[in-house]
This record gives sequence, C-alpha cells and structure tokens, in this order.
Amino acid sequence: MSEPVTGPVEVSEEQRRREEALVERVVRSFDACEDPRLRFVMQALARHLHAFLREVRPTEEEWAQAVEFLTDTGHITDDRRQEFILLSDVLGASMQTIAINNEACADATEATVFGPFFVEGSPEVPMGGDIARGAAGEPCWVEGAVRDTEGHPVAGARVEVWEADDDGFYDVQYDDGRTAARGHLFTDDEGRYAFWAVTPTPYAIPHDGPVGAMLQAVGRSPMRTSHLHFMVTARGLRRLVTHIFVAGDELLETDAVFGVKDSLVKVFERHDPGTPTPDGRPLGAHSWSSVRFDIVLAPERG
Amino acid sequence: MSEPVTGPVEVSEEQRRREEALVERVVRSFDACEDPRLRFVMQALARHLHAFLREVRPTEEEWAQAVEFLTDTGHITDDRRQEFILLSDVLGASMQTIAINNEACADATEATVFGPFFVEGSPEVPMGGDIARGAAGEPCWVEGAVRDTEGHPVAGARVEVWEADDDGFYDVQYDDGRTAARGHLFTDDEGRYAFWAVTPTPYAIPHDGPVGAMLQAVGRSPMRTSHLHFMVTARGLRRLVTHIFVAGDELLETDAVFGVKDSLVKVFERHDPGTPTPDGRPLGAHSWSSVRFDIVLAPERG
Repeated sequence: MSEPVTGPVEVSEEQRRREEALVERVVRSFDACEDPRLRFVMQALARHLHAFLREVRPTEEEWAQAVEFLTDTGHITDDRRQEFILLSDVLGASMQTIAINNEACADATEATVFGPFFVEGSPEVPMGGDIARGAAGEPCWVEGAVRDTEGHPVAGARVEVWEADDDGFYDVQYDDGRTAARGHLFTDDEGRYAFWAVTPTPYAIPHDGPVGAMLQAVGRSPMRTSHLHFMVTARGLRRLVTHIFVAGDELLETDAVFGVKDSLVKVFERHDPGTPTPDGRPLGAHSWSSVRFDIVLAPERG
Repeated sequence: MSEPVTGPVEVSEEQRRREEALVERVVRSFDACEDPRLRFVMQALARHLHAFLREVRPTEEEWAQAVEFLTDTGHITDDRRQEFILLSDVLGASMQTIAINNEACADATEATVFGPFFVEGSPEVPMGGDIARGAAGEPCWVEGAVRDTEGHPVAGARVEVWEADDDGFYDVQYDDGRTAARGHLFTDDEGRYAFWAVTPTPYAIPHDGPVGAMLQAVGRSPMRTSHLHFMVTARGLRRLVTHIFVAGDELLETDAVFGVKDSLVKVFERHDPGTPTPDGRPLGAHSWSSVRFDIVLAPERG
C-alpha cells in the first residue's frame, strides 16, 4: 500500500489472516466480562472499530491525527460546552440513538434530538398564552391536539416547548439570566393545546471548535434548519421529544444534526399585518404565522 | 425494546426503514467533500458507527455514559499522559494500524506497537556494549543479525532498543532525568549485532484513569507482558518497529495492548551465576539470560 486508499483494497492471504487474528484476539479479551450487556457492547465495538480500520486502512499519521482530534474535542469540552455531544450530533449518532429508543409504533409521532438547550422548570402558560416572553421574533400561533395510538384524546398532557429567538439564540445563551421562548401548558379535556411563540429561524451550532473545523473540511454547513422543540408527557404513554420544522426552509435537507423527519415538517402559514388572529390578540403592524401540530403518543414501553 | 439487548434483535420493517434512511442521509452529507480520501474515511466512519449503534441499540442513558467516558478521557489527557492512545491500544486499534501499515512481505519480521516510551537521541553503544546504564535488572545478552528478504546481510543497520527496568518503569518515568535501558548500535559487515541489556519484566499500563476503569469493569488485566523494544532502520528497507517477548511468560495471552505475535516470542535462556558469558564479561554472583533475535527487513514501500 503506497497511497491512502479511497475504496476497497485487496490484501494478501497472509495479511488478511494476521488482521483477522488480531480482531479475534481483541473480541476474546472481553469474554471474561461478567456483565452480559457490557460484554456484548464491547465485543460489538471491537468488531465494528476493526472493520472500519481494515476498510479505510489509516496511515499511522492519520491515526495520530484522529487521536489529536479526540484530544482537542476533550479539551474544549467543559461545563458549558459539550463538544462530544456535538460530534455525536453531526455524525447522526444522537439521532440514531433517538430512533432506536423510539421505535416506530402505529401512527405515533416521530421523535428527534433533544438538544442541549432544554431547561427544567420552564414557566407555565395558560391555554393560548405567550411563551415568547419578549424574545425577538415574529409572533407564531401554534395549536393542535394530543391523542394516543387508539385515537383517544389525551387530557392533561404536559406540552413543553422551547426555541431560539430571531437572532438564533436560546435564552440560556445570553448572560443576563433571561427566561424567554420557552414554557409549558397542559392539554384540555379534548386533548387540545394552543399557544403563541415566535416563528422559528435557522441558527448555527457552535462551530469554532474541532467539530466545526471538521464540518468545514468536509464541506458541510453548521446550520440547523428552523425548528420548535416539543416534549410531551402523559401518564401511561411514551414520552415524546421532538421538533417541528418549517416547510419550504432551504436548510431542511442539510440540517447539521440530521433531526429532520418528513412527518415533522409542517406548513407555517404566513399572515399579513392586520389579519385577524385566532384569539383576537392585537398585533398592530406585525405579520404573524400559524401552524397546526397534532401529536400521537405511543404506549409506554414495557 | 424493554431491556438492553445482548444479542441480535429483530425490528419492524418501518423501524428498519427509518434507521437505514438516517444512515443514508448521514453518508450523503459527506458527498460534497472535495478531498476523496477524507470523504472515503468519513463515509466509512458513518456506516460503521451506525452499524454499531443499530446492533447494540444503546439506551439514551448508555449513550450519555459513552459521551461521559470520552469526556473523562479527554480531561485526563495532557502533555504527559495520552489516554486516547491508551484507549486505542487496549481496543487493539493501535496494533491493527501497525498491522495495516506493515503488510506481510515474504519472511520479513513482524511489527508491533511503538508505545509512548521511545526517546530520540539515545546513547550509541559499541558492538557488545551495555545499554542498561545502571538500570535495575538481570543482565541479558541479546544478539542476532539483520538481513533483507532476499537473504543479503544488512550492514550498518541502526538497531535501536529500549525497555523498562526490573521495577517496571522506563527511564523517562523517573523524575531524575536519567537515561537508562535504552541505546542504539549499528550492524557489522555481516549484519550482526550484539549488546547487553536487562531481562525484560512485565509492567502495568497507566490504569488509574477511565481506560483503567474500563479494563476493570470488563475483567481485563492492565499488564503488558515482558518485552524489549526494537526499531531497526536501514537505507532502502522498510523501517521495522517491533518487540521481542519472553517465551513462557504467563501474560503472553493477555497482553493489554495486543502487541504479541507468535513469531516475536523468543526463548530467553537462563544462565546460573558463574556461567561464562559470550564476551567474557564478569557478572560475579549474578544470574543472566541470553536471547537471539534475527531480523528480516522488507523492501521500502513504494
């Protein structure tokens, strides 16, 4: 092998034997692990890691670069910044973990990534209340209903929502301790909910670190397509963590963390200034938008 | 899925479709990468990473633990300690990279891991000289010859050696700046070399960090089996980085970094005190050992 490979390579029988013998030895080294789950995970890790190495055949310099990348990723990570989660996100690993843990179940609403910006103890708003609390952005009326997979309305479901403001920042990214563009409310007897928020806009994930450098090197955008986070909980039903996305957003296909599911892309209707609002709220010279998001919760997993 | 899995699982057709669609999306996200090697590596990484996730099906808590493990590994890593290399070592990834970059070639001597204890600029010793320089340990006579794969002796090859002392430490692990148990010499016109060292003994890799905790959790030993490091360089031939191991060492099968190759296990003959030495060196009441290691260098890779 003279040049780094860009496709499958053939190796000699003896070379293949040596590489496979090593994989076997590594896999067997975990045989004595008493925890069957840990043994399974580590042996699978060994097999997949070595399959990757044997396919890409890193030079020693490349492997040293990989170690350096992980080291840099560790060193930029602190209490306020988690670059490994970001790495997991941009490789789609976070999203795959979500998919695995929210198995398809009848017509239950699909889940997507949780993200780092959820905060416990958000303010409660009444039905039709405004979660924006002064966050910059165009007013957006959000309404829908929550039901289970058998079609029964879910009363008293907790609907938690959070989003970035028009400048692309969540409240916790400001230093002034504000609480804005987040809140929760409960569904009524017919499972309905409605609230005012701000129309979601795109923003960039932190991209001044090793993960950002990687995205740039491979020609990928650090932008997340516009979205509004939901977490919906109700007794006896599977907790749903998801977003809704804005139909027509040009970033839908290139969302940096692969959060987009077709079923979660919703039409946000645009309304000119002066168009009457659903609850009669006066918006003066402001345009506004509205979206409907009906939610189906799966049964709790056994 | 109710319990973490310990073997292959079946998922529904819709679930399989969702998981595969995500993998496709991640792989495609690298399509625009202009560097063909980087594109190949990242797309292979995406495929193997997702195959691992889909096989082990981590819970969200487990994935968070994995992120925490990497974070801890990053935070313990500094100028003096490289926990990611240690992680690569104990997963056999370092050894696989070595195997890949030192392809089997006729009867060329096999390579093994470089390790973190090599130091540039070791002292030169004459033929038959002592590299121990006062390192604690039983004297060991090491001799052999260097040839190429066509059987020609390699004159003037640089034979660099280094090892831990009898207490299991390399010189650089002491704070006193000593240089001991390392050195180099050159082969004579017939490719021969010979020197005194100390009989290798086992030692533990650093195991007070995340990697050590992992080894303990899976029931693996942090011990490296006894070995003596070699690096052999000669013009026009492939550089060889390897060790020799001690036949009969009880740790041969469980070497923490998978460095052992059967072809590198050598008989270290034990000699009672008073047995005459090859070069007449007087050793008084000391026992000593001797080993022969003949080395074959592959042609330089093209």
